[in-house]
Amino acid sequence: MTPILADSVRLTDDGVEILDRRVFPERRVWVHCASVEEVAKAIEDMVTQSSGPYFAALWGMVLAAREAAGLDAPAARARLDAAGARLAATRRTNNHLRKAVTATLSQVDGQTGGELVAAVLAGARAGDERYRSRSAALGRHTADLLPDNATVLTHCWADLYLVELVLAAADKNLAFVCTETRPYLQGARLTAETLAEMGVDTTVITDGMGAAVLSSGEVAALVTAADRVTMDGHVVNKIGTLGLAVAASAFGVPFHAMVQAPDRLAPTAAEVPIEYRDGTEVVNRPGIRGHYPAFDITPPRFVTTVVTDRGPFSPHQLADYYREAP
Amino acid sequence: MTPILADSVRLTDDGVEILDRRVFPERRVWVHCASVEEVAKAIEDMVTQSSGPYFAALWGMVLAAREAAGLDAPAARARLDAAGARLAATRRTNNHLRKAVTATLSQVDGQTGGELVAAVLAGARAGDERYRSRSAALGRHTADLLPDNATVLTHCWADLYLVELVLAAADKNLAFVCTETRPYLQGARLTAETLAEMGVDTTVITDGMGAAVLSSGEVAALVTAADRVTMDGHVVNKIGTLGLAVAASAFGVPFHAMVQAPDRLAPTAAEVPIEYRDGTEVVNRPGIRGHYPAFDITPPRFVTTVVTDRGPFSPHQLADYYREAP
Repeated sequence: MTPILADSVRLTDDGVEILDRRVFPERRVWVHCASVEEVAKAIEDMVTQSSGPYFAALWGMVLAAREAAGLDAPAARARLDAAGARLAATRRTNNHLRKAVTATLSQVDGQTGGELVAAVLAGARAGDERYRSRSAALGRHTADLLPDNATVLTHCWADLYLVELVLAAADKNLAFVCTETRPYLQGARLTAETLAEMGVDTTVITDGMGAAVLSSGEVAALVTAADRVTMDGHVVNKIGTLGLAVAASAFGVPFHAMVQAPDRLAPTAAEVPIEYRDGTEVVNRPGIRGHYPAFDITPPRFVTTVVTDRGPFSPHQLADYYREAP
Repeated sequence: MTPILADSVRLTDDGVEILDRRVFPERRVWVHCASVEEVAKAIEDMVTQSSGPYFAALWGMVLAAREAAGLDAPAARARLDAAGARLAATRRTNNHLRKAVTATLSQVDGQTGGELVAAVLAGARAGDERYRSRSAALGRHTADLLPDNATVLTHCWADLYLVELVLAAADKNLAFVCTETRPYLQGARLTAETLAEMGVDTTVITDGMGAAVLSSGEVAALVTAADRVTMDGHVVNKIGTLGLAVAASAFGVPFHAMVQAPDRLAPTAAEVPIEYRDGTEVVNRPGIRGHYPAFDITPPRFVTTVVTDRGPFSPHQLADYYREAP
């Protein structure tokens, strides 16, 4: 079955509906965006996150095309380009947004009116399909690495990669342990709810319990998504991944990091600036400072496998990913 | 200066006042216990924890002596023994409670009335003094291991050991980073508030950020208390300690565990049963299981120093602690 978070950004006749991940699963609220500007605002306001902004940008561009349908070709193109720039700027560290915009414009070539809308819609659908098929391939390759009846520890929210892994491993009887992932609790909220929705045996632990669970001998693998993997094998992911990876390594548990592709724009970890968020999101009391790096960087010595849409790679041989095709 | 948590269980003319750690620091509420039974109930209800129950048992026995002051010597002794058994049973895994009761009875020898109360009070004061002087020694020995201007990572709430460490290191300009320590947030609540109260530079991180902070090169040492240290060097402490210790080891940061003495009743970690608390304290939603081991066990290969009231020891040579004196 498809869990709700795998289809949480939807194009309708009068706008884009986005499931509000800020209050999920306590409440299932859909935010209605009637214009591309409202879609951009929703992304900025964190209504959706992870793969959500990619899909929001795809369907947001369709709204832009509808808004531009009455213009002549040059004006319509200018309107689309402005909309794309607006959407791509909503989250500056997220590469996926630019890819979404590019996908929607790939079939635009001087059309106007209904033909323009159809061209953008076709590009958006292709972008949707491409993202989903790559995620599905990633899920299958990851499932192949896991033994039957494995208990898998995961961190934060691996989104479609996790959903596709569960679907691909349907006959393996996997059980999952999820870290709650403070301060936003993506693990306790998004991951645990989605796994339970898919009928998977699901346990939540606090972030500090990971090492104890890994040392128990009961976990077959640590599996997380990666926000980015550098060409020299560093895994950039939600803060907390590093500690789990180090503990997994110490206790002989493999760590498989899932990413569609290693990032050719990041040869080494030095190219990846870490986003620091406001410390008051961790603690907000006088005389006490909060510290909130949003991501950490796991060196390749603590990474067993980087799983991509083209299969599993050693973190030390990621150049092989681009050997056959660009 | 002495922070409030270092003097949070107080004997008065009409009872024992216990600072309620369940709501600290949001509110500073003192629970008034008029009888030994009310003290026992307060301990069971988690009004105080860590070293708090030790002091509560000392002063609770003074209340028991007051209640027994009108009885003849055998009846008074029986009343005291019953009170001691009641207090010692409030937290079955906490050795300190039995020691507190024993201390208060050490000078009881057939007295009645005011003399009985004076004898129990003298024993309680000696127990108080002994616990504080051992903690002070422990704090001094730990301070000796830290360089000037060190940033120290700590976990959960090391109580008087931490307070004494800060006092002993007053001229070292230490800064502390505290993990929030989910699910009860002892680090964010008790540790951070006490450090700030003592004028120490204090930063709070979520439990998942420890490894990133340890890998940054900015932390000079990981320092925690230990609930128990086995004779073969395993450190039993609040869940989350293991992950920090493994990361400290991986990134070359020393881990100093503070305990008054290693536990001769626990030759190996196999002798230490781990307490599992109710998983609903971690997560409480249908279809999702919570897992809550309260402690974890750090093997000696991840421990640099076990600091005791008799000085620092290698985790591999703890028998030396008992070489000179029992």
